[in-house]
Amino acid sequence: MKSMQELKKQVAQANVDLVKYGLVTLTWGNVSGIDRDEGLVVIKPSGVDYKTMSAEDMVIVDMKGKVIEGKWKPSSDTATHLELYKAFKNIGGVTHTHSTYATIFCQAGIEIPCYGTTHADHFDGTIPLTRFLTEQEVDEAYEKYTGKIIIERFKDLDPIATPGVLVWGHAPFCWGKSAEDSVKNSLVLERVAQMAYATRHLNSDSNPLPDYILRKHFNRKHGPNAYYGQK
Amino acid sequence: MKSMQELKKQVAQANVDLVKYGLVTLTWGNVSGIDRDEGLVVIKPSGVDYKTMSAEDMVIVDMKGKVIEGKWKPSSDTATHLELYKAFKNIGGVTHTHSTYATIFCQAGIEIPCYGTTHADHFDGTIPLTRFLTEQEVDEAYEKYTGKIIIERFKDLDPIATPGVLVWGHAPFCWGKSAEDSVKNSLVLERVAQMAYATRHLNSDSNPLPDYILRKHFNRKHGPNAYYGQK
Amino acid sequence: MKSMQELKKQVAQANVDLVKYGLVTLTWGNVSGIDRDEGLVVIKPSGVDYKTMSAEDMVIVDMKGKVIEGKWKPSSDTATHLELYKAFKNIGGVTHTHSTYATIFCQAGIEIPCYGTTHADHFDGTIPLTRFLTEQEVDEAYEKYTGKIIIERFKDLDPIATPGVLVWGHAPFCWGKSAEDSVKNSLVLERVAQMAYATRHLNSDSNPLPDYILRKHFNRKHGPNAYYGQK
Amino acid sequence: MKSMQELKKQVAQANVDLVKYGLVTLTWGNVSGIDRDEGLVVIKPSGVDYKTMSAEDMVIVDMKGKVIEGKWKPSSDTATHLELYKAFKNIGGVTHTHSTYATIFCQAGIEIPCYGTTHADHFDGTIPLTRFLTEQEVDEAYEKYTGKIIIERFKDLDPIATPGVLVWGHAPFCWGKSAEDSVKNSLVLERVAQMAYATRHLNSDSNPLPDYILRKHFNRKHGPNAYYGQK
Repeated sequence: MKSMQELKKQVAQANVDLVKYGLVTLTWGNVSGIDRDEGLVVIKPSGVDYKTMSAEDMVIVDMKGKVIEGKWKPSSDTATHLELYKAFKNIGGVTHTHSTYATIFCQAGIEIPCYGTTHADHFDGTIPLTRFLTEQEVDEAYEKYTGKIIIERFKDLDPIATPGVLVWGHAPFCWGKSAEDSVKNSLVLERVAQMAYATRHLNSDSNPLPDYILRKHFNRKHGPNAYYGQK
Repeated sequence: MKSMQELKKQVAQANVDLVKYGLVTLTWGNVSGIDRDEGLVVIKPSGVDYKTMSAEDMVIVDMKGKVIEGKWKPSSDTATHLELYKAFKNIGGVTHTHSTYATIFCQAGIEIPCYGTTHADHFDGTIPLTRFLTEQEVDEAYEKYTGKIIIERFKDLDPIATPGVLVWGHAPFCWGKSAEDSVKNSLVLERVAQMAYATRHLNSDSNPLPDYILRKHFNRKHGPNAYYGQK
Repeated sequence: MKSMQELKKQVAQANVDLVKYGLVTLTWGNVSGIDRDEGLVVIKPSGVDYKTMSAEDMVIVDMKGKVIEGKWKPSSDTATHLELYKAFKNIGGVTHTHSTYATIFCQAGIEIPCYGTTHADHFDGTIPLTRFLTEQEVDEAYEKYTGKIIIERFKDLDPIATPGVLVWGHAPFCWGKSAEDSVKNSLVLERVAQMAYATRHLNSDSNPLPDYILRKHFNRKHGPNAYYGQK
Repeated sequence: MKSMQELKKQVAQANVDLVKYGLVTLTWGNVSGIDRDEGLVVIKPSGVDYKTMSAEDMVIVDMKGKVIEGKWKPSSDTATHLELYKAFKNIGGVTHTHSTYATIFCQAGIEIPCYGTTHADHFDGTIPLTRFLTEQEVDEAYEKYTGKIIIERFKDLDPIATPGVLVWGHAPFCWGKSAEDSVKNSLVLERVAQMAYATRHLNSDSNPLPDYILRKHFNRKHGPNAYYGQK
């Protein structure tokens, strides 16, 4: 379980980074990471202050949500994280926040079109919105069905190319190849949401970016011919 | 009076936290806490800088507003705090700020509907707005009547489930089970107000959250079956 | 000239406070203070970085703008400050900034109505807007006439009760009983402007605060019966 | 190559200043500087964290983009910088950011009129917008043509008097007499864009600043009769 110790450190750091990036108020956010070989998920404890949080506070749960290790209760959103890990086989980390502008799109029930290259660098097109949960789903298993309506919305979408979603009436979830990567995608989503909000105000006839520029930018950073960065 | 010393420390810290959370400019805010057994309230002094403020600067008043201990004059809003403590028997702390977005709703004379789960996690529905004070009320006892129009607005509301209010033309008051808790509710109100402001801009047809989701979220954190956090 | 040394320290500190309060970008702001007995004004040097600024960098000018002491050129806006000191006999300090929201009202050519008590606590009613300078005034003596159109606008206003103004197409000037006080009024103006901007967006039918509440709040902090603060 | 060492330090510092001024998120920005005598450009490496960046991380390229010195790959936007240096003979530094409000104007496809003196102090009139790249240009040499459409837009404009541009659907580029100067112009553009955005919201009939005031302000800081600052 040496790798689990490393994962706990990464997940604790990723949770603390939410504060550094201005993505959370009080304890409104949680990050997890998965060890696919062990079949175990490391997640933030529920309602604990980020300021005093360390690797030792992280909770290890199995894929059914049973606590394997940890002195705290896991995040109340754990069941949502688990659904995402089960459906999206290539992701290594999940982040949930109530970051201001992404949440505003969730509240207004509006998807985020790709208005510029900042968006295209990280999300391959529109950032999708789920439907509302039904009353029966809420009653039966609220957090689990929150995962299920996300997965339903991704029926025809690639979660790697679109690493985040807006849950209607609630807030965003993002993911990535690691816990750290899912936090960065949450930060990108927040900036992209802020700019989309103001773009629509400035010009209500704003058009999405032409598709050939979207493709170019996304592929500069992703896929086989990426040439951004040092790799 | 040992517990009063502890309360003075808590109230001083809660006042300083207003600055940490970005809820005040200059000296525009005040927090108090009550000792129900002693029948005494600890409150911030009027117009004193938060930077140099300590427990020793706090003022102790009785339920009629008479200064029992303290080297400074109490907050000019003391009479409003006292009215709230007398009417809302289960609260332990009161916070008044002019935080930006909550104050904007006060100035615009608009209540804050529950547009999402961030709101539902802390306020059980619409955040209410008082009426304006009449000229006679202003002349007679401005701060006391500010408390009275809040209480009037809560005639059919539970102050525990709705721990804050917008005073028309003025600014918000929040409360909670302690001074610290009332500050946290003030922070939540500010974030919720900012998101409600932008939600309405983004989509002028935005609907409030379906009631069964509101209920679910509020009850995750409050009431007998709460399962958020470590308790 | 002992008092001049003290004034230089106060004015240097007041200029540095512009940065602390988030009122300036780069070197876009300047504060001065006057010694009425000496008939001398201490003002910030032109285009010097706030980070390295101390009392020794301040420039002393006489009421005609002649440099009496100092190693730098005075602020390019010195002539505006001098006009204000000559016309408004009871002020001790002047601040000019391009703070974001106050400047937006200047650019939009709109005065700031009193929408709430935050405004009423510091400005006794609408914050006025000057006219544009004429081409001849600009050619002849730009900075001096900037002062003159402010004074023209205050023909029927009391500069003590309304300690600031919006210069159309330009930015705000504020004043007060000292350099420090003029900076505080600039901060209040910025907050009030931000809230007025958003209040109008939230509700385009927003009404100014009823006059009897405006009067009450202004007089809580100002005038013979003031009872806010410790004096 | 002693001067190149100095230039590397300046360019590294200018890149770090992007963070200080709040102009970048993650690694979304790059600054370069040119040594006209050597015919060499120093530029930020691609995708490297600003926090750990020093002069030793800078990359030296020749005017064809060939790496002359450096352990990293140069910024993916290097070809754009080179086009600008070749066309605008008097500039010494170039900055590219995705700063929030300037990018919003790029996304909305709207030029920034001069609404006030803050703008006029630094940009001699409207801040121009390029056209979109064609699909063929994107396919052939995306970054090089980004430079070319900027230059095309400046056919009748002086790049010294208008030290920045909005690339439609993308983000701004600014330049100046040095790397540091190009960063300052990027900061000014961001502030000016934020104020223009809100000015249009506050008053949709806002007019540009009268030309004689624009001229006066631009010439206070620029040109033969400038009298702002200490030179």
